[in-house]
Amino acid sequence: MVVPIPVNVDDVATARERLRAESPLVHCLTNVVVANFTANALLAAGASPAMTDTVEDAEVLAGGAGAVLVNLGTVTYASADGMRASVAAAARNGRPWVLDPVAVGPLPWRTSLAGELLTLAAPSVIRGNASEVLALDGGLGGRGVESTADPDEAVEGANALAAKYSSTVAVSGTVDLITDGHRTVRVANGHALMTRVTGVGCALGALTAGFLAVVDDALLAAVAATVLLNLAGEAAAVRAPRPGSFATALIDELDATDADRIRTHARLG
Amino acid sequence: MVVPIPVNVDDVATARERLRAESPLVHCLTNVVVANFTANALLAAGASPAMTDTVEDAEVLAGGAGAVLVNLGTVTYASADGMRASVAAAARNGRPWVLDPVAVGPLPWRTSLAGELLTLAAPSVIRGNASEVLALDGGLGGRGVESTADPDEAVEGANALAAKYSSTVAVSGTVDLITDGHRTVRVANGHALMTRVTGVGCALGALTAGFLAVVDDALLAAVAATVLLNLAGEAAAVRAPRPGSFATALIDELDATDADRIRTHARLG
Amino acid sequence: MVVPIPVNVDDVATARERLRAESPLVHCLTNVVVANFTANALLAAGASPAMTDTVEDAEVLAGGAGAVLVNLGTVTYASADGMRASVAAAARNGRPWVLDPVAVGPLPWRTSLAGELLTLAAPSVIRGNASEVLALDGGLGGRGVESTADPDEAVEGANALAAKYSSTVAVSGTVDLITDGHRTVRVANGHALMTRVTGVGCALGALTAGFLAVVDDALLAAVAATVLLNLAGEAAAVRAPRPGSFATALIDELDATDADRIRTHARLG
Repeated sequence: MVVPIPVNVDDVATARERLRAESPLVHCLTNVVVANFTANALLAAGASPAMTDTVEDAEVLAGGAGAVLVNLGTVTYASADGMRASVAAAARNGRPWVLDPVAVGPLPWRTSLAGELLTLAAPSVIRGNASEVLALDGGLGGRGVESTADPDEAVEGANALAAKYSSTVAVSGTVDLITDGHRTVRVANGHALMTRVTGVGCALGALTAGFLAVVDDALLAAVAATVLLNLAGEAAAVRAPRPGSFATALIDELDATDADRIRTHARLG
Repeated sequence: MVVPIPVNVDDVATARERLRAESPLVHCLTNVVVANFTANALLAAGASPAMTDTVEDAEVLAGGAGAVLVNLGTVTYASADGMRASVAAAARNGRPWVLDPVAVGPLPWRTSLAGELLTLAAPSVIRGNASEVLALDGGLGGRGVESTADPDEAVEGANALAAKYSSTVAVSGTVDLITDGHRTVRVANGHALMTRVTGVGCALGALTAGFLAVVDDALLAAVAATVLLNLAGEAAAVRAPRPGSFATALIDELDATDADRIRTHARLG
Repeated sequence: MVVPIPVNVDDVATARERLRAESPLVHCLTNVVVANFTANALLAAGASPAMTDTVEDAEVLAGGAGAVLVNLGTVTYASADGMRASVAAAARNGRPWVLDPVAVGPLPWRTSLAGELLTLAAPSVIRGNASEVLALDGGLGGRGVESTADPDEAVEGANALAAKYSSTVAVSGTVDLITDGHRTVRVANGHALMTRVTGVGCALGALTAGFLAVVDDALLAAVAATVLLNLAGEAAAVRAPRPGSFATALIDELDATDADRIRTHARLG
């Protein structure tokens, strides 16, 4: 039996064009380590970042943005309040949001916060590595924490999370795995240098939010963000074999990666 | 009638040399997204950045620095306290300060904070885009908020703000407009890539503070900062047509832009 | 009399290989200006950064990391609590920690905080410039604050600090000076451009923590970090004569600097 790929590469290419054409406002509550890189990644891809997590500002922005990103990387007591306000405001206004549960599992306080945010409003996409997805599932009564770098070992946890929250779950790795519990897509693009620079995974969460602002299908949005970032990484690695210049080239290639490159080079399975 | 340009390009060139020669301490209370880029922009231009917003540290630094920058980009309750302390300390010690009212208008809390800071002590320069300048004027009883990218649509608001606070108001755009309510200068340099990288406008505020530390005329300081940054942008765009490498090249060119380049390429009107 | 150099260049080269092979987790409580650059410096050198300073997270990470960095650059009331918790957790778990006392001396609040952290647990390495080391010694009853850029003027203060806390003290400058109170090493590598980019000194503190996680001798760890960073700086300056591209090249060269380059180019005295 041949299982058709549930996302069409032409739809990914079209989504990429829409991101540039519509330049949606993406409200990012993210960590201080990657804030600059994330903003530049969004700008290079064609979106418009907003980045503040004070309660009053965050709820106004979350209500007006095309989509919201919540990344727990350096969450503080103060920024956690902004996250609560933003998620609630996104829900009230029907805006999609993305949860990037950085380092949940080993760190109990933020694991608890992630559970609280999921209870406030289900995110359109949960994006993490395999360990984070397993931890998030486990911390909420599922399989428990295992440390693994292989997205395929997190398939069951990802599907369980997807079903529980009617969300899409995107698991990063050498081959990225994206599932909404019914449809599963693997993206075989990317480059090892992407793990040698801080903030590449965090940028993926932000780009996913960007695509959620321009397409209705959350699975397509997560796939499009993954394809765009991974193709940019492949192109950057060709001319920049060391991590400092690779990071700069990656931003350049988020700008340069267009629908044609996606149609030619995306490896969906 | 020929109206003479109120700022001489030779004075701009001399100011640029003084910035490098004196390397003034510039105390920046700025947003976490652009803090690194701002510090590197100041260092490349020849100034010495200090960046902390805790109350105790901020008031010591503001009292001893050549000038102070307050940028509201990611202001929090805690950093707002540092801003209040810094503005008060700057005023007590006769130090000039720059207000960069990022996103005032749509965000009520920070709009109110901006008004509060303006009441504490008049800034030497208010620097923003057209919408921010109009919002700042409007939020303080003026014309109200309009969203526009054209500095010339903000002329009246800029003049009103300038008159009210005896400040210079610098409005960024394709052609930058700088007024102290009596004299108006337009700077026609720059490049579109400057809007594709986060923190370029914020760096302009910081550079303006740097120039305020070495020249007495606030209008000249704002013009010099605008010319320096815009010429660096033009030079960077020649060799870096994509945003990632453009950002790196812009820092290089803040170092490379000297008095000669200013005399040759500045387009003041 | 010929005094032998107390650290062998082969041990430095071996330490560099171990850093890449073991990729230790380095928990950084550092300032928001340099967080991104520090994380990328650690990744490029081969280590694994963690960066959060909320109390609950910080004490878990400090207990599990190979080493901890505390950098006071933009310390806030909230992050100071994370620092206290991390230092205490590091001490309970026998983990080494590095103090980078940015701007102690002129800023009383953080000078007092530095003293408090030193009382909680003695750091394996104190890393600063000459003025900071003198201020730290002075603020604790020693010689008092002098402003100087020459590490050799801080020799007595460095030795006093080293003796008081049984720590290694690393003083940055044109020639870096590193002492544990008994053994003194000077490193004559580096490049002036390293002072034109923000965060290079802060990265040295983080790299020192990285080496503390893989070698037992704190003096060797501090020397290895200094040699690695300075040789990366020399190589970067060859191809990048301006500060923006120099910063990018420095990250590249932290990756490229290996045991062979260290054996060939390290200038220990």
